[in-house]
Amino acid sequence: MSSSFHNQPPQFYIDGIVKSDIAVLSKAITIIESQNEKHQQLAEKIIEGIVERTGKSFRLGITGVPGVGKSTFIESFGSEVLKQGHKLAVLAIDPSSDKSKGSILGDKTRMEELSTKKNVFIRPSPSSGNLGGVGRCTYETILLCEAAGFDFIIIETVGVGQSEIAVSKITDFFLLLMLAGAGDELQGIKRGIMEMADALVITKADGANLEKAKAARSEYAHAMHLFQASDSGWIPKTLVCSSTENKGIDEVFKMIDEYKRFTMANNFFYQKRKEQQFDLFLNTIDEQLKQKFYSDPKINSQIEKLRSTKDQNFQPFSTAKKMLQDFFKKN
Amino acid sequence: MSSSFHNQPPQFYIDGIVKSDIAVLSKAITIIESQNEKHQQLAEKIIEGIVERTGKSFRLGITGVPGVGKSTFIESFGSEVLKQGHKLAVLAIDPSSDKSKGSILGDKTRMEELSTKKNVFIRPSPSSGNLGGVGRCTYETILLCEAAGFDFIIIETVGVGQSEIAVSKITDFFLLLMLAGAGDELQGIKRGIMEMADALVITKADGANLEKAKAARSEYAHAMHLFQASDSGWIPKTLVCSSTENKGIDEVFKMIDEYKRFTMANNFFYQKRKEQQFDLFLNTIDEQLKQKFYSDPKINSQIEKLRSTKDQNFQPFSTAKKMLQDFFKKN
Repeated sequence: MSSSFHNQPPQFYIDGIVKSDIAVLSKAITIIESQNEKHQQLAEKIIEGIVERTGKSFRLGITGVPGVGKSTFIESFGSEVLKQGHKLAVLAIDPSSDKSKGSILGDKTRMEELSTKKNVFIRPSPSSGNLGGVGRCTYETILLCEAAGFDFIIIETVGVGQSEIAVSKITDFFLLLMLAGAGDELQGIKRGIMEMADALVITKADGANLEKAKAARSEYAHAMHLFQASDSGWIPKTLVCSSTENKGIDEVFKMIDEYKRFTMANNFFYQKRKEQQFDLFLNTIDEQLKQKFYSDPKINSQIEKLRSTKDQNFQPFSTAKKMLQDFFKKN
Repeated sequence: MSSSFHNQPPQFYIDGIVKSDIAVLSKAITIIESQNEKHQQLAEKIIEGIVERTGKSFRLGITGVPGVGKSTFIESFGSEVLKQGHKLAVLAIDPSSDKSKGSILGDKTRMEELSTKKNVFIRPSPSSGNLGGVGRCTYETILLCEAAGFDFIIIETVGVGQSEIAVSKITDFFLLLMLAGAGDELQGIKRGIMEMADALVITKADGANLEKAKAARSEYAHAMHLFQASDSGWIPKTLVCSSTENKGIDEVFKMIDEYKRFTMANNFFYQKRKEQQFDLFLNTIDEQLKQKFYSDPKINSQIEKLRSTKDQNFQPFSTAKKMLQDFFKKN
């Protein structure tokens, strides 16, 4: 596609998205992801034009360490979502996608079967870039997909870094995939991630692995039980499934559906969305304030000097205070 | 004491502190805690004057839910610290101390025996106040105590809120006190606090409670084991003790001493101090940036309007961006 495709007026993208034109949707997402100032202005107008049609999907975050079988799970789970009559968008947050296109392709091929189906849109989403990259790009991509009629959106992330925290802040439900391992079942999982999870699903519960998975389930269920109840009143669930044998997948869907009904009934669903929106706003302010401050060349060099100082007696509070005073005198 | 005591030149306080004059030390701490701009300038000069004499204490954070017996533990443990030849300062962070003086008095009476001993200084420290209150006041109070010759400093906090996070950022060792309860041993403890702990000590391990305490110890030890190893290479310990029967208290001291030797030998001790200092600096910048922004009356009223809006379609990113642009145009 030619780059002039990026130079259409906002209404072109708005109309295309509303008509569920996948090529236009894809291009609009590319515009959202662009660091170019003109593209960012265009992106803002596109968002304004479609925002009234957003908010009507269920937003599902899925995470798990590499090797847990996320793509296979999403293949299998995605089919169940389609069977239930939904239009499905899968946004895969790929930490390596900024450096090389290789893994994006990898993701696509791994979900080959799902990607050929009707009513499915699969798209990698950048994990970094400047300033709140995951949050902004992925959140706005969700909005575009919703406006294009996708009413079930999966945001997939690798459970190894900060991106799952960002994902939990823009999704309605956070699903953690786990493997039944040998020995201590909890090793290597960051507790913060387990704490965020609304459910934990043990994958690859098939063949010789089935008993191990069930044992792991009970150990995890115990661990989850130790955590404090969520504000929603929802008690995190622990399930097992086999993506290759397609076992337990429908139960995962039912469980998520149960969560949706439960939190819509007690209003938590809507309350959480509202809070997420406001938090995104406050976080953006905080990030941009810092960005403005730390991108000042003089500040930058002063801080680097302090970072490498051997001075044991450098005073954190008064130094910070003076630096701020100088900054605001100048700006 | 007359208020003119606050109007002495910086050198008066510096000399008094260095001579370990407790009355002057107390006054200097009051100056540090003051929100008055003149007092803050005086505080900065005092800190500058004593900073070269700081850093030589061991800084121990102690937390636990109300009822766990923190004061009784500190009475007993403090005696052990004195027996080992140290000068001990106890800074009690009391969440209620800003509202009423009642609980300060309470703290003092609770540590009555310890407070009458030689080489002991007990002082409540405010938990809030403006802008990074705990961090700044308590950190600078530590510095003053160190300059006055106290080489073992306990910072006590109630394990129910945010203050223990602040305390963990200014201490060398973080000790969590726990009770052996009935039923599930982990209920009610925030995981984040357990994660921060370098050791967990089960109190009130005496009489009929001894067996329960030992059982709890093994359950906690298992839970601690699930956590990832600290950067220090130190494996968090789990002990039991009885403050009233003075049992196990010397073991707690030995264990902390072991930690000190271990982390000094592998340099983690010094590295952590350096990082804490730099983090305090960066956190102060972040807090003061926000304070400057959010205290702007126009910004404030815009945000309150947004907070109460029913508008589902308010765009967090573009709204934040515009607000920042306006702010920096004006300032």
